[in-house]
Amino acid sequence: LDSGTGREVQRMLHTLSPQNIAELLESSPPRIRQLLWKLIDSDVEGEVLQELPDEVQAQILATMDTDEMVAVMEGLDADDVADLLQQLPERVMGEVLSAMSENDRQRVERVLPYDEETAGGLMDTDTVSVRPNLPLEVVLRYLRRHERLPESTDSLFVVNRRDQFIGLLPLTKLLTSSPNATVREVMTTDVKPIPADMPDAEVAQLFAKYDWITAPVVDGEDRLLGRITIDDVVDVIREDADHSLMSLAGLDEEEDTFAPIIRTAPRRAVWLGINLLTALLASWVINLFQGTIDKVVALAVLMPIVASMGGVAGSQTLTVVIRGMALGQIGRSNLRWLLSRELGTGALNGILWSAVMGGIAALWFGDWRIAVIIIAAMLINLITAAVAGAILPVVLRALRIDPALAGGVALTTVTDVVGFLSFLGLATWFFA
Amino acid sequence: LDSGTGREVQRMLHTLSPQNIAELLESSPPRIRQLLWKLIDSDVEGEVLQELPDEVQAQILATMDTDEMVAVMEGLDADDVADLLQQLPERVMGEVLSAMSENDRQRVERVLPYDEETAGGLMDTDTVSVRPNLPLEVVLRYLRRHERLPESTDSLFVVNRRDQFIGLLPLTKLLTSSPNATVREVMTTDVKPIPADMPDAEVAQLFAKYDWITAPVVDGEDRLLGRITIDDVVDVIREDADHSLMSLAGLDEEEDTFAPIIRTAPRRAVWLGINLLTALLASWVINLFQGTIDKVVALAVLMPIVASMGGVAGSQTLTVVIRGMALGQIGRSNLRWLLSRELGTGALNGILWSAVMGGIAALWFGDWRIAVIIIAAMLINLITAAVAGAILPVVLRALRIDPALAGGVALTTVTDVVGFLSFLGLATWFFA
Repeated sequence: LDSGTGREVQRMLHTLSPQNIAELLESSPPRIRQLLWKLIDSDVEGEVLQELPDEVQAQILATMDTDEMVAVMEGLDADDVADLLQQLPERVMGEVLSAMSENDRQRVERVLPYDEETAGGLMDTDTVSVRPNLPLEVVLRYLRRHERLPESTDSLFVVNRRDQFIGLLPLTKLLTSSPNATVREVMTTDVKPIPADMPDAEVAQLFAKYDWITAPVVDGEDRLLGRITIDDVVDVIREDADHSLMSLAGLDEEEDTFAPIIRTAPRRAVWLGINLLTALLASWVINLFQGTIDKVVALAVLMPIVASMGGVAGSQTLTVVIRGMALGQIGRSNLRWLLSRELGTGALNGILWSAVMGGIAALWFGDWRIAVIIIAAMLINLITAAVAGAILPVVLRALRIDPALAGGVALTTVTDVVGFLSFLGLATWFFA
Repeated sequence: LDSGTGREVQRMLHTLSPQNIAELLESSPPRIRQLLWKLIDSDVEGEVLQELPDEVQAQILATMDTDEMVAVMEGLDADDVADLLQQLPERVMGEVLSAMSENDRQRVERVLPYDEETAGGLMDTDTVSVRPNLPLEVVLRYLRRHERLPESTDSLFVVNRRDQFIGLLPLTKLLTSSPNATVREVMTTDVKPIPADMPDAEVAQLFAKYDWITAPVVDGEDRLLGRITIDDVVDVIREDADHSLMSLAGLDEEEDTFAPIIRTAPRRAVWLGINLLTALLASWVINLFQGTIDKVVALAVLMPIVASMGGVAGSQTLTVVIRGMALGQIGRSNLRWLLSRELGTGALNGILWSAVMGGIAALWFGDWRIAVIIIAAMLINLITAAVAGAILPVVLRALRIDPALAGGVALTTVTDVVGFLSFLGLATWFFA
């Protein structure tokens, strides 16, 4: 890429699908991204833009004027246009909307009121609906009058006179049933439509559970508003799964891998600052025992081991619990069992590794008292870590704090403080 | 649940869908799981079993005899039966296979040779295929002779005389085109079929990229073997996304949240043991400077801060790089840019927080030398952390070691050793 001239690159881009171009943009540093964007054929710009993560979209939109934006958004699904518009400042959004064609604007305005993270924000409005009393033969003729059906259409939605959803007519059923049967005789009615205000994570769980490809979205009175397709749900599943991973390191799952320093540094600085506070708390605990350390320097050598083993054991418990909560597996009824399992595991591994470490300490420093102290401190800290790892996420959730984001810091604070406190406290008592 | 009698529970289970029963089983501790399983209607047992994660499947299968297994597997898709069989010991698998009906066995044996983590392992064999020269009218009549089409069918596969895949006939096109057109005139040929040996992660990327619902799987000579459906791909996407999260804590993404202590404790013990080794390495480094700590005890108070800040900064870089690699965004061409971005971010945040910490240390201990030492050590460690976080995963991948699994430990080792070494080393030099 670096060596190619503009025209060569342009020719290469011309041969790629919009999805491949989006991938290329996403894996490029900001400056190259801007260069590449200028070389893309204008008729695929919209499709490429729509495939990019939010942060990259915002970055590219920021370089365009209103007319360019309108041109780019033409021909996209209403839900995708709404997603793009939501990256813009309020004022610009209004300008773009009023520059759109009447028809496009209406389509978009129907989905725009819904929060991006709800069913309404995920849906598009390209549905094909039929009435229950029609014979299939008429439905078949009606479909043949369409140039094409919306992408991923696997069912028609059956609605009554008041546009309320009453059932699904899968295309496979339409094709295998007698043309004389009516829609009502053939349709499936065991699918509950999705209310527009359902959170997107719940929508994703329903899709994954029932293997849906598309599902109808309705308002409070069961009127059909649109449909959600599996491809948008796959994105939600990916982001939700990413959320825990990124949050545990204090990062945002929408974070652009190739964001420039001026965006990355301040975000991470906040997280480092929070961690500095917790590290200072641990130091303050150590400071209480300066006298003891002064007497027995070996304590300073061994104390990080107690804290670190507690941190590792705790983060294992924490990860299992956070994932279980994200999958909706953990509630009040099984938390007690989980806590006792974690306690047992912590105690067993505590006994094993503290014994090993006690032996090493005794050999290393030739002092049985140090061995006893580190065994006791490790046991205390590993058991504390198990309890904290299991209970912290539940407590944080009850306080409406994201456990994936705050859990790691809270846990390290506990295991550091308890680790240093138990080890140095016991030592002070023994060597007093 | 605890208070209900067996019959009440049975009645309750009877009203739940197989997916809901599976969810309930998955969120139950082992003993309750066994009890519940006995109360499930035998005709949904297969569907329930198939929805469960591998580890739970194996646990339940272990309690059945051959006849029960054959009964449970009846009526499942061939790929799902193959997945279940792969949880069994070789000998039992043979027994179950030979107890199956001839027809079922053949279907299963066609998919069994493929590794579970390839396209072949994901596919099922329920495809509907048509010849290119047929008029659509004939296709429509042919479909109407079916009782039902396989689930999630959104396209028919077009094959030639030698059963080689040549194109797709989407149902939506079949329904909107003239019945007199031939399959060849209407089919899409821009979809490349998936080779049976493609790794499942690549399959998932293709589905996510092109918004597929089903895709054909072919052998080395392009002969149609079966199809992959989006619902199985969604599971792959979930597991892959989970992989990084769980591995960073030394856990397996297939891990059952409610595994009993005897399974959890040994697995986690290994990880704790590895971490004990790296903690001992850090202790050994501290031990080198016993003399200096003996002189200035304040060093023991502050040294964990340097190591901990390095660990946090490094794990942020590591997480971004590991996720970028999992999404296929990071290659040789952009690694250098990423490394310099991380270096810049590390340096900026290093300057900020080491200055803050230097001020705190000067006020706390009233000694400018300690302030200078901690500023320098934090700068060194934060920059080292950025480099290690960006380069370690790439090096590990080149060595064919899973970066998500080994990256965290390797990183902590580096930041601990460099943190203690730089802080105590500088102190020794200053206070000599």
